Amino acid sequence: MVPKAGAPNTNPMKDIPIDGDRLWNRLTEMSAIGAQEEGGITRRSFTAEERAAKDLVISYMEEAGLSVYEDAIGNLFGRREGLQPDAPVVLVGSHVDSVVNGGNFDGPLGVLSAVEVLQAMKDHEQVTRHPVEVVAFTDEEGARFGFGMLGSRALAGTLTVEDLQRTDEDGISIAQAMRNYGLEPQRLGEVSRPAGSIKAYAEVHIEQGSVLENKELPFGIASGLAGSVRLGFTLKGEARHAGTTPMNLRRDALAATAEAMGFIEASAAETGTTVGTVGQLELKPGGINIIPGQVDFTLDLRDMDQELRDDVEERIVSGIEEICERRGIGFAVELLQRNNPVPCSQLVREAASAACEELDVESFELPSGAGHDGMQLTGICPMGMILVRSKDGISHSSDEYSSKEDCAVAADVLYHTVLNLAGIAR
Amino acid sequence: MVPKAGAPNTNPMKDIPIDGDRLWNRLTEMSAIGAQEEGGITRRSFTAEERAAKDLVISYMEEAGLSVYEDAIGNLFGRREGLQPDAPVVLVGSHVDSVVNGGNFDGPLGVLSAVEVLQAMKDHEQVTRHPVEVVAFTDEEGARFGFGMLGSRALAGTLTVEDLQRTDEDGISIAQAMRNYGLEPQRLGEVSRPAGSIKAYAEVHIEQGSVLENKELPFGIASGLAGSVRLGFTLKGEARHAGTTPMNLRRDALAATAEAMGFIEASAAETGTTVGTVGQLELKPGGINIIPGQVDFTLDLRDMDQELRDDVEERIVSGIEEICERRGIGFAVELLQRNNPVPCSQLVREAASAACEELDVESFELPSGAGHDGMQLTGICPMGMILVRSKDGISHSSDEYSSKEDCAVAADVLYHTVLNLAGIAR
Repeated sequence: MVPKAGAPNTNPMKDIPIDGDRLWNRLTEMSAIGAQEEGGITRRSFTAEERAAKDLVISYMEEAGLSVYEDAIGNLFGRREGLQPDAPVVLVGSHVDSVVNGGNFDGPLGVLSAVEVLQAMKDHEQVTRHPVEVVAFTDEEGARFGFGMLGSRALAGTLTVEDLQRTDEDGISIAQAMRNYGLEPQRLGEVSRPAGSIKAYAEVHIEQGSVLENKELPFGIASGLAGSVRLGFTLKGEARHAGTTPMNLRRDALAATAEAMGFIEASAAETGTTVGTVGQLELKPGGINIIPGQVDFTLDLRDMDQELRDDVEERIVSGIEEICERRGIGFAVELLQRNNPVPCSQLVREAASAACEELDVESFELPSGAGHDGMQLTGICPMGMILVRSKDGISHSSDEYSSKEDCAVAADVLYHTVLNLAGIAR
Repeated sequence: MVPKAGAPNTNPMKDIPIDGDRLWNRLTEMSAIGAQEEGGITRRSFTAEERAAKDLVISYMEEAGLSVYEDAIGNLFGRREGLQPDAPVVLVGSHVDSVVNGGNFDGPLGVLSAVEVLQAMKDHEQVTRHPVEVVAFTDEEGARFGFGMLGSRALAGTLTVEDLQRTDEDGISIAQAMRNYGLEPQRLGEVSRPAGSIKAYAEVHIEQGSVLENKELPFGIASGLAGSVRLGFTLKGEARHAGTTPMNLRRDALAATAEAMGFIEASAAETGTTVGTVGQLELKPGGINIIPGQVDFTLDLRDMDQELRDDVEERIVSGIEEICERRGIGFAVELLQRNNPVPCSQLVREAASAACEELDVESFELPSGAGHDGMQLTGICPMGMILVRSKDGISHSSDEYSSKEDCAVAADVLYHTVLNLAGIAR
């Protein structure tokens, strides 16, 4: 029996159709796909590992009685009809790709929670007015092409043919990777959904921070999502002999990069809220006895306050340019991605908040410091998220962990949030 | 006709048997082997490119009438007998392996000058008392295993079976690379030469610095060779999400490395003579949105003053350890190589100086900031070098250049140096 709105349940864990064991077992099963010897899982987009993860989700979707289909960018959908099949769909899900040596929860928890919600509806014969679809978006993380949220951008109609020309470290473009995967990049335009066709998008995701842990809360409702600016820097000096070039005659691209990284760290730290990360760095030629002639590195910069973030970005770019000028180093910067911070919609926040009331659990709001697919969808539908407590705030690591109990509670909240959004048919 | 000692030649370029055109043409022919599309040449040890370079040298050795053989580490020799075949050999040569994207002169100039000297002796029927051998040493640069001068170490008997377990970036050990190349690592012990079996070792090499250019001299005689200490650092932090981990809670291995590199640069610069270079750096996991959890980087540190160099090394290591402690970063350092600065022998310096007198060219001494095979041989024979002017001091780069004329003059000096060492048989 499902607790009804307005009829608070004094024992919230009773009568809830979510099967926490099933959800946990599926998370465990998923964690074997792309598991790395050195620890963590690696499932980059358009690879055999990512395909295997989607295939596993398909098997669960079929178990849940969903109609399965994939679109031209590889987004995977499982649909459960509503009483009004033509009504805008309630979309719920996340992604199954990962960063390199990432964790088992970032992405899969949201997809598998969504499947669990729809399987529970089937098991308990819960009918909704609106149709509900689970989605596993393609390439949220951007671990392969340095440009993420491909599936949600395509759904929103903002992924361009030019974007598909971006390449991975082996020089393979997104378009080529899609073809190798069996997709047709020329059909990209078919992926986009018109505004109004999606009633709302809701996603369960790990917090990836320590706010909930510090508050001793199993989950929270996202108030908004911080956007990240991603820049690619190229510093060019002169590759010379390490033994015969005096320090004062060097144009060392790596020494300049070291100074630049120090400046990035200090500039981000001094605001108190901005975070700046150099996550990738490659140097050439890379001989133990050669002064590096070129360094390419990335910067990921975030803040919930867009104005503050843009200000820090400007200071960092001009600061690095000054460092390079002083050192006689060639300087180039490329914008890889600019996601601005967005608030979550009132519609989803209220649906989630009502779900908490129905379940008699505390409703607490917090911003997410991470980027998520939802931020790409703001142009076509209301969106919101339920964040799950992360152990020690760790994510993108093999130490990423959320407890079975916390995952189950979040799935419960998602269940009721979806019912509130899709409308209960009695 | 060869100018004799004590009979200064007023026109030094006349009557000299060295064929500067032939030397230059061979340098040009050699420069095609391992040429890279992006510029420079790459001939790492035990590769097809290094084999091709040695095979080309063999063809020149045969043209010069030398008896060719290779030892168990792959050192290539071409021998010209003396009147006293059992007398200690005069060894002269260099190497043909290169750094990644290196130049056309570093190594080949010394090997091809030596072949040219012996070919000139053949062409002019110049007989010596001591036998003379050209050598092309295996892996001087250390570009593949981060540990160079393999051939000269083996000749001196200081290369150990443990050293052969060092691996390249693909995890292939030196021993395995040798086997793949057709060599038998278990025969390593056969390579070493007893003290007294080599009368002297002499090598022509580009300066790789700007001293000769500034002095407007085509060549100089090395007074000594600066040794390099090579260290491998491993800094371990925590791989966390770039968006949700506040700056003050990070244990960023790359940010710590940036600070360490700044400290290295400042510590080397403040002495005025020490040079310190971070030439290789790898980070993990390498995601654009992940704080680096581990960074491995190398340091190459040199100074002709050993005490000063060791003092700087100590300050750098303890300075980086402090940086890591303050940042909560795990710290480990490994000694990859320790070559101490060595003076060149009086015997070779005097033979070269006499050669200059015979040729009526200026004899100028300078230290070499680079490491060379000669420094490995100090335990078994006297050694010395003739350094050739480098354009703009550049080496280890496709811009590395010495003029045809300078190369020819250096080969002339080498010719007379070898005659002085091997003894002219009239």
